[in-house]
Amino acid sequence: MGYIKYKYEDLTRLCNVVFQKFGYSKGDSKVITDVLLLSDLFGIESHGIQRLAKYYKEIKNGLIKVNTEIKIIKETQISAVIDAKGSIGQIVSKKAMNMAIEKAKKTGIGIVLVNNSNHYGIAGYYARMAEKEGLLGISMTNSPAITVPTFGIEAMMGSNPIAISIPASPYPLLVDMSTSVVTRGKIEVYNKRDEELPIGWAVNSEGEDTRNPKEVLNNISNKIGGGIVPLGGSNETLGGHKGYGFALIVELFTAILSGGLTANYVHVNGVSGTCHSFIAVDYGIFGDKLETEKNLSTYLNEIRSSKIKHGEHRIYTHGEKESEAYNDKIKNGIPMNDNTLSEIDEICKYFNLNMNDYIS
Amino acid sequence: MGYIKYKYEDLTRLCNVVFQKFGYSKGDSKVITDVLLLSDLFGIESHGIQRLAKYYKEIKNGLIKVNTEIKIIKETQISAVIDAKGSIGQIVSKKAMNMAIEKAKKTGIGIVLVNNSNHYGIAGYYARMAEKEGLLGISMTNSPAITVPTFGIEAMMGSNPIAISIPASPYPLLVDMSTSVVTRGKIEVYNKRDEELPIGWAVNSEGEDTRNPKEVLNNISNKIGGGIVPLGGSNETLGGHKGYGFALIVELFTAILSGGLTANYVHVNGVSGTCHSFIAVDYGIFGDKLETEKNLSTYLNEIRSSKIKHGEHRIYTHGEKESEAYNDKIKNGIPMNDNTLSEIDEICKYFNLNMNDYIS
Repeated sequence: MGYIKYKYEDLTRLCNVVFQKFGYSKGDSKVITDVLLLSDLFGIESHGIQRLAKYYKEIKNGLIKVNTEIKIIKETQISAVIDAKGSIGQIVSKKAMNMAIEKAKKTGIGIVLVNNSNHYGIAGYYARMAEKEGLLGISMTNSPAITVPTFGIEAMMGSNPIAISIPASPYPLLVDMSTSVVTRGKIEVYNKRDEELPIGWAVNSEGEDTRNPKEVLNNISNKIGGGIVPLGGSNETLGGHKGYGFALIVELFTAILSGGLTANYVHVNGVSGTCHSFIAVDYGIFGDKLETEKNLSTYLNEIRSSKIKHGEHRIYTHGEKESEAYNDKIKNGIPMNDNTLSEIDEICKYFNLNMNDYIS
Repeated sequence: MGYIKYKYEDLTRLCNVVFQKFGYSKGDSKVITDVLLLSDLFGIESHGIQRLAKYYKEIKNGLIKVNTEIKIIKETQISAVIDAKGSIGQIVSKKAMNMAIEKAKKTGIGIVLVNNSNHYGIAGYYARMAEKEGLLGISMTNSPAITVPTFGIEAMMGSNPIAISIPASPYPLLVDMSTSVVTRGKIEVYNKRDEELPIGWAVNSEGEDTRNPKEVLNNISNKIGGGIVPLGGSNETLGGHKGYGFALIVELFTAILSGGLTANYVHVNGVSGTCHSFIAVDYGIFGDKLETEKNLSTYLNEIRSSKIKHGEHRIYTHGEKESEAYNDKIKNGIPMNDNTLSEIDEICKYFNLNMNDYIS
């Protein structure tokens, strides 16, 4: 198993043509591709183009609907709730964040919730949409259940990421993280690499620590028991109940407030049901925006310049690694895992496409 | 060292009279006492009446101003920013959450930020104020710097709790947690009990694990280095960068957006500068509120009823322990630490009060 680097433009062309073969319009394929590839550019392999095979499987088995009309269920000046009608996550989510941004520009805040959707890629993509408009952006999503509650052995919450972004200099602040110790995508990457998991990421069906990524993925998919542990670990000593609490907050802001499905019902009985939330805030309602940006940039710089532990080399602030990875990968290419390429190659063959016509 | 139980009513009387001796009005003393004692009723000793001596010290050295007029700096239909002018946290915070609640009832949401304040007790008190009004309530606060960033040895963030509460049956959901592994208050309790800290809570000035609560408190107070680690630990393996990210989110929503001081400037050069945020949401803007409460209650009950790890006895949802502790302590009394009682006794003597006139 190894990694070969491919050009961003080539992978973009490939991804676009594959989604068009799946039945998406040119415009929709571009949106999905854009979200997936940004993850790879940020160096987050788990949520990038490696998801393609999984999406294909879910389109075939009907979890993801290709031609579907999303529906606004309820709307106020500051809020909306959207039924995605089984849409792929990226398409409805981009529309939802655009609605939130529009509302925020008019009233100061926009909160748009989406239910009955699917995987939407990295949460950070949507938070960043607001940041690019000079706003504070927040996005959260639930997912099929992968996270066990403290002292439990049944996965009841999703990976449940929270992303938040706001302008700062020289990098915007971009916090984007699951509330489980790691995401299922990361376990998939370890599985593809045939590597053992670090202790403290997942438990088996008895609730004991496990290093076996295949076992964890199988247990989650087939609801055998166990799963990934919440941020803070599997008990209360180091705050596992806090990660569990953050996971609940995300279920609240996605599934509960939108009237959608909580993680334990997502991907059950052939229904997708993933729920998202999108919040944009025009922080000018609190004070002078330039002043705010300056104060934030100063603070983040103070943290980066604070004293480092002996043996460590750098203190990062959130969004900095992504920004540097982006520049590197645009210039030097995106490393693709052999296994991911074989998966995509197989899909291409099915559609009578020659993968090598697009990438080299 | 030991614990003796005292009646809630007696401790309330004592606390009220002490704050009146500090110079607060009857009404203000009642607010402060109410917040502190709720923490003790919830079983959270660290944020309860044990803070009294610390508050007294901070009133004497001028960090906390007793007679001060708070000032609204900026206000919109959905937001406000308040300069607390060095007020004790509880008084300005109760006013701020009441403003947020009023705005939410009119517009769907209210966000009130406070800067230039002091310790405000448990964040959950304010989230619960909104919950009692049938709203979703959120509160966050920063604090003097106690938390080190990932790979850093200089405390740059506060304990930075996030609290959120919303009606549910039979217990409201109440998540209330610091984004550091533990709070400074908890280290203080270990110090008072003369107990060693578990490994994974704090690091010394070199960034190495330490079990010594006195050393940690001294290092934090005198900015010698080290401190408490973020939720997820001192490195990235188990997600310490995520806890660090949550701590930054709280600094953003309290200090940065309010134009106040970030943790690294709080309690520096005799200025307090603590910042809080209070958010209330009328979640009826998203859907039927009774339906929402029903769905949430069902989900929380499903989690509590899910499979338990062998050897464990119970899966809790957040707010349940607090609710049970409340009922127990109202009935059976609040356990008070010897050291805390001696501290209060000393303060009483200074004011020519006999502590035993109030508690027995």
